[in-house]
Amino acid sequence: MKQALAGIRVLDLTRVLAGPFATMILGDLGAEIVKIERPVTGDDARHFGPYIKEESAYFMSINRNKKSITLNLKNEEGKHIFKELVKDADIVIENFKATTMGNLGLGYEDLKKINPRIIYAASSGFGHTGPYSDRPAYDAIVQAMGGIMSITGAKNGEPTRVGSSLGDIIAGMYTVIGVLAALRYREEEGVGQKVDISMLDGQVSILENAIARYFVNKESPKPEGNKHNSIVPFEAFSTIDGEIMVAAGNNNLWRKLCDSLGLNQLADDERFKTNPLRAKNYYELRPYLANQFAKKTTSEWHKILVAKGVPSGPINNIEAVVNDPQVKAREMIVEIDHPIAGKVKMAGLPIKLSESKATIRAPSPQLGEHTEIVLSEVLGLNYKEITKLKDKGII
Amino acid sequence: MKQALAGIRVLDLTRVLAGPFATMILGDLGAEIVKIERPVTGDDARHFGPYIKEESAYFMSINRNKKSITLNLKNEEGKHIFKELVKDADIVIENFKATTMGNLGLGYEDLKKINPRIIYAASSGFGHTGPYSDRPAYDAIVQAMGGIMSITGAKNGEPTRVGSSLGDIIAGMYTVIGVLAALRYREEEGVGQKVDISMLDGQVSILENAIARYFVNKESPKPEGNKHNSIVPFEAFSTIDGEIMVAAGNNNLWRKLCDSLGLNQLADDERFKTNPLRAKNYYELRPYLANQFAKKTTSEWHKILVAKGVPSGPINNIEAVVNDPQVKAREMIVEIDHPIAGKVKMAGLPIKLSESKATIRAPSPQLGEHTEIVLSEVLGLNYKEITKLKDKGII
Repeated sequence: MKQALAGIRVLDLTRVLAGPFATMILGDLGAEIVKIERPVTGDDARHFGPYIKEESAYFMSINRNKKSITLNLKNEEGKHIFKELVKDADIVIENFKATTMGNLGLGYEDLKKINPRIIYAASSGFGHTGPYSDRPAYDAIVQAMGGIMSITGAKNGEPTRVGSSLGDIIAGMYTVIGVLAALRYREEEGVGQKVDISMLDGQVSILENAIARYFVNKESPKPEGNKHNSIVPFEAFSTIDGEIMVAAGNNNLWRKLCDSLGLNQLADDERFKTNPLRAKNYYELRPYLANQFAKKTTSEWHKILVAKGVPSGPINNIEAVVNDPQVKAREMIVEIDHPIAGKVKMAGLPIKLSESKATIRAPSPQLGEHTEIVLSEVLGLNYKEITKLKDKGII
Repeated sequence: MKQALAGIRVLDLTRVLAGPFATMILGDLGAEIVKIERPVTGDDARHFGPYIKEESAYFMSINRNKKSITLNLKNEEGKHIFKELVKDADIVIENFKATTMGNLGLGYEDLKKINPRIIYAASSGFGHTGPYSDRPAYDAIVQAMGGIMSITGAKNGEPTRVGSSLGDIIAGMYTVIGVLAALRYREEEGVGQKVDISMLDGQVSILENAIARYFVNKESPKPEGNKHNSIVPFEAFSTIDGEIMVAAGNNNLWRKLCDSLGLNQLADDERFKTNPLRAKNYYELRPYLANQFAKKTTSEWHKILVAKGVPSGPINNIEAVVNDPQVKAREMIVEIDHPIAGKVKMAGLPIKLSESKATIRAPSPQLGEHTEIVLSEVLGLNYKEITKLKDKGII
């Protein structure tokens, strides 16, 4: 079975998360990812904990399916080698500050002269245009500046950071979309282009109805805890042993929920007949439901609600997630054999394609593991030339 | 300027958020989106607040660049019309429960017989395989079951829902990636395929280092508030008038931060020289920094830190986000002229392409606005035939 991106070569200059997350997806889909790392130290994420036998579990989890070569891009000979690689590549991806590649003489304007079909994707904190374009950023900064924190948190509580690096992840996903759209354009028109992704832009794009609410009400929405801001009931309820999330998104589900709880009289109660009424009379309604949910365990209620077709679920911790039968059935936790760390578990591939299945073909590479093979196979360098580059610290 | 997805026709059966978010991105990139809605009521999201002159601001914000036709897919003649449309389409996208389309005789297995080049993307709560595949879900359910809530919240606090519908949005983005990968595969191999996206899978894929930490430490990570779990300093500090997020992700930035705060002696302090030391001696370190940050306003500190190159930013509410100079410069808030609602503001396009710019070409459609034109232009139906379908309630 051929993969969707078979035959596509990506020169991957990215480090840490946003860029590597993008090239991981492209690699999973079958592209050849040539990760180009700084000699000696490599990608910063190689030095992020937690570790398994001196290998970063973090690095391993987002760098599968990649080759690694070392190359010093500040050195003229290093730049020359990079440019030679660009001639034979489809895509360059980097997540440096906006000015870095241009200052090295390796920006899109430079590279397109060498290969007009090259697709150049840059993922940066604030994008390559605008007044903040030269500022550095990390996930926490764009989560703060992008507004998602201001609508996340306990009801009327403090703004809260999303517990994973959403700023990077969203930017990484848009980078993939941009690159694939540019590939389609190249297929049609024969030329590459630049894809300019900003972590801050990405955060703004996922604010969902908060933007509409602001412009209609002229007031910034606040954290709402675990309750939906307009649909009722759509929130977590306490049970004997924990909590259960329940989402009755329409009147049909509302009736099923009442039935599940043994509260059929509520379904016909005039105060609660429609969602606008349930929202209006929320404080009258909630105690009826809370009272029932307090009588059984989360798992007992979940079984009842599932049987009646009411969307519901436990609030799983990571242990429950990785052991969940559906997560297992969908192969969303995979195990990779790493030559040093041994068997390593990580998130699987969320894009399930029937004809060109995404696959994991290799563990994350050791720093520079593929330098020699790439330089000899792609550029035709011989053993002596490669040794010389090594001696000079260029690779 | 031609758009990246010009010439691609999408039959869009999606409702509410996950699917419409995906087809919005495809439409922004230039695909023709034919939104197929239930007659009379249409997409549920048309009835979600807030409203501007009886138009849902929510619906408008995720359905720009789409045509709308009405079609009753439960009716045999309606099914026939849909199948005729499939013959001339590139992509079908739906976000029903897993069994819905198959039960209607319109699943991928049915449609590929009509058009083997069709790409069929399904975005559902739990995916089309596995033990939960027939269960309904909403965003809150998959946020709860997928683990993101368990790592989001105040330090040692309650699990907290992300304040926008991340379960839908991530699934929508993976749907786009899957569809574009399938398009590339079709370009090479000549056949379509099925793209099966699960909201729960998507949530598992964005847990980032929480999975690695669980498998290494055998303990489920907990909410960490606004502080990074391993990098120091990387958190929010109180100022005279609010808070500022600061992220000193390496030793170089640590020195710059000390300099900005007038605490150069700390940069050389043996207790804080490296990130592992700063993490270990966090409770000794924090008061020095907190003490300084308390002396100026957020905006004063932000200016100083920006000048020194230390990643930092205010925790913006939505009002601050939509008025931010960078957000404006990147056109991340756009205004569309809607025939009924008037000027409507919404999030812009985060995928910036140099050659095939994504654009907003039309406001969200009225229900069935394009029924006649699509049926006449694509299927060649005449006025009389269309009137008959209307009379029968099929369109």
